[in-house]
Amino acid sequence: MRSVLDIVDLSVDELQELMQTACDIIDNPEKYQEVCRHKKLATLFFEPSTRTRLSFEAAMYELGGNVISVSSANNSSAAKGESVADTAKTVSCYADIIAMRHPKEGAAMVAAAAASIPVINAGDGGHNHPTQTLADLLTIYREKGKMENLTIGLCGDLKFGRTVHSLINAMSRYEGSRFVLISPEELKVPSYVKKDVLQRKRIPYLQTTNLEDVMPQLDILYMTRVQRERFFNEEDYLRLKDSYILTPQKLMTAKKDLAIMHPLPRVNEISVAIDDDPRACYFKQVLNGKYMRMALILKLLKEAGTI
Amino acid sequence: MRSVLDIVDLSVDELQELMQTACDIIDNPEKYQEVCRHKKLATLFFEPSTRTRLSFEAAMYELGGNVISVSSANNSSAAKGESVADTAKTVSCYADIIAMRHPKEGAAMVAAAAASIPVINAGDGGHNHPTQTLADLLTIYREKGKMENLTIGLCGDLKFGRTVHSLINAMSRYEGSRFVLISPEELKVPSYVKKDVLQRKRIPYLQTTNLEDVMPQLDILYMTRVQRERFFNEEDYLRLKDSYILTPQKLMTAKKDLAIMHPLPRVNEISVAIDDDPRACYFKQVLNGKYMRMALILKLLKEAGTI
Amino acid sequence: MRSVLDIVDLSVDELQELMQTACDIIDNPEKYQEVCRHKKLATLFFEPSTRTRLSFEAAMYELGGNVISVSSANNSSAAKGESVADTAKTVSCYADIIAMRHPKEGAAMVAAAAASIPVINAGDGGHNHPTQTLADLLTIYREKGKMENLTIGLCGDLKFGRTVHSLINAMSRYEGSRFVLISPEELKVPSYVKKDVLQRKRIPYLQTTNLEDVMPQLDILYMTRVQRERFFNEEDYLRLKDSYILTPQKLMTAKKDLAIMHPLPRVNEISVAIDDDPRACYFKQVLNGKYMRMALILKLLKEAGTI
Repeated sequence: MRSVLDIVDLSVDELQELMQTACDIIDNPEKYQEVCRHKKLATLFFEPSTRTRLSFEAAMYELGGNVISVSSANNSSAAKGESVADTAKTVSCYADIIAMRHPKEGAAMVAAAAASIPVINAGDGGHNHPTQTLADLLTIYREKGKMENLTIGLCGDLKFGRTVHSLINAMSRYEGSRFVLISPEELKVPSYVKKDVLQRKRIPYLQTTNLEDVMPQLDILYMTRVQRERFFNEEDYLRLKDSYILTPQKLMTAKKDLAIMHPLPRVNEISVAIDDDPRACYFKQVLNGKYMRMALILKLLKEAGTI
Repeated sequence: MRSVLDIVDLSVDELQELMQTACDIIDNPEKYQEVCRHKKLATLFFEPSTRTRLSFEAAMYELGGNVISVSSANNSSAAKGESVADTAKTVSCYADIIAMRHPKEGAAMVAAAAASIPVINAGDGGHNHPTQTLADLLTIYREKGKMENLTIGLCGDLKFGRTVHSLINAMSRYEGSRFVLISPEELKVPSYVKKDVLQRKRIPYLQTTNLEDVMPQLDILYMTRVQRERFFNEEDYLRLKDSYILTPQKLMTAKKDLAIMHPLPRVNEISVAIDDDPRACYFKQVLNGKYMRMALILKLLKEAGTI
Repeated sequence: MRSVLDIVDLSVDELQELMQTACDIIDNPEKYQEVCRHKKLATLFFEPSTRTRLSFEAAMYELGGNVISVSSANNSSAAKGESVADTAKTVSCYADIIAMRHPKEGAAMVAAAAASIPVINAGDGGHNHPTQTLADLLTIYREKGKMENLTIGLCGDLKFGRTVHSLINAMSRYEGSRFVLISPEELKVPSYVKKDVLQRKRIPYLQTTNLEDVMPQLDILYMTRVQRERFFNEEDYLRLKDSYILTPQKLMTAKKDLAIMHPLPRVNEISVAIDDDPRACYFKQVLNGKYMRMALILKLLKEAGTI
């Protein structure tokens, strides 16, 4: 049974296929609104994530299917000591596909090994969250019209932000990608990402602490949240946080067709004054995330022979 | 985008139209059972309210639509610091209409300003809860066959009970309304309601602490809960609480066609011995609430061009 | 209005009818996938039970119906002091059938008396949980091809395990049933079960503390969880717990067509090494539970004239 636990579980060709399906859904929603009739998605969110759960559920409803859901951390079966594998086997009796978020790394893999239906990893600890990356990729594709030869700025917490590592991984598979890594010293991209991905594949990248210096080069600016608790001391946090807040002023030198992205929720990394700027794409990402989840559900149910 | 945040957002003509739609739904439910097919309601209950949430969800299902839901106070996005405006923009990507309850006054207004889909206020703090008032109005209309020339008794906590203020507001728009305000001194209708609504519109009203004295005059008796925590001292509470409990004995002098109403949940304000009295209308209110929510969802989705 | 609160609310003929409906659903799922269209199940889980809730919800969706749900213990109406009877009356305005779990014994009976729609008891305290027994019965029927002349081993906590008492009750109604009761002294079947059911009906039974001794006799082995907190002292628990863990070795002397059952969730009562043994039926029970819930929902909605 095919499951998707990590963005690298999908080949470049499959990413392309998913993006094309998503675009077709956007153009012809009626064509898809009954394809999953009588099918059920189980959203098992053992760690709450309203945004991601609602996106999966909206996706399944727009395909004509139904949803059963566990949205609470204090899941009763888990509280009684049930293993993730047994939960996955049980839910396989109730649903046709699972989207699972779990606080422990590897939980989705355990679930996928036990389940008799496809499992989509909707986030496991600080590890993987492939459908966020699918949302990011479709946004890049729709905004830029291509995936190649793009300069991608990543700004903020590049150390702990899993969406950043996953996006680097995914975009490094396209020709001509170039990365600009903008972060405080404390929150730089981990060396294993640099070594295993960027250097191994000889992908050009630049590291800097200064957003404004590199702004003019960027085709894409992917902002992330700088969390106070990541800093050793409050002073460093206060000194740094403002330099990573995107304001209209900092955008003055940016390209006219820059795509500003953010995985959301934002706190104050992007000034609300930018929301109406045509370059702001973060709410488009939300919409694109729904369409890519629809495409992925469709693909996995088709491969499983369910539809 | 048209939203409904307060009962006064709807004109008297619109209230009439909603009541007529509700009556048509009651008479011809099959006519409506597919009208919202492929549409989605998001119930965002950042403050739990099982009764109201289930009413909205039942309403949407009876219109043939689907529901995505946040029913837990510890909403994960909010916990990560997301603003109500961002939540509303995000959910606009997932659903066609929002019903939102929030502990903070004005939250629904902020959501409505940010959302690209209609927002129904399902309660914001101690402030507004317009669909409860819609339920009350339909109940009056169906029980009395008219909205004019009615003597409406309001009994219990008239100070903090938001449904009472909202109902005074709504009924004061119909000709010939007369109010009898029955409460302990501590829980009288606030002076701004008396000044801004009753006195400004020259609507006759009577204030009293004694329910039994005024019983024979009433066409409608709207009971509310007298909460222990509203009193300064326990003695006052104990002295007063029983005089505001409705019993079969207190009903002896009431009109034969009195309509007894209560927004529910009740604790002990109305003796269960009255439940089988044909004048008891509080469970009819529950049903009417569902029909008015159906009518309102229909109206707003039509105005938005969604259906 | 017909409700099902206890397994004995259903006659042997009705059990047979439910099992036949379930088998027909298994063979012809398409025949049933729209029968509850426009109908709503309310799952009211005032005590969380993910597994049972999802089973009911999957059942209703596979019948083409919809679901409204309360899945949180801190139900807001209950928190405001509402009675179970008022909740049941309210939900009768929103749904066509209720599945209710509640921590208090008798809660489902109170709800059934107040509701104007059928109520299925999905567990009330340590008392009754009839749909688990329905799952067990269908599993026996499908695995054995008959209900009569079976030797049923029950192992583990036979004192507090409500599923065990309910299964003894149900199987004692079939001819030729014989029970083997395997438990530590501390967790033996209560004497009222022995007196009121087994002895009164002159049903042969054997009590033992040793699982391996009786293994060769058994047609069915129903395992249950031995909870640490049931023991007076830790030593007894540690001494006993391993003797009630089912391992491949202990199965060496078992019949080739033994049916191994467990109400789940399991902790470690059954070694995962047994999961692939063709005699392991506990995940089949999960599936059968869904089909019996479908059959029961159908039966009650038909009797109520809803479908």
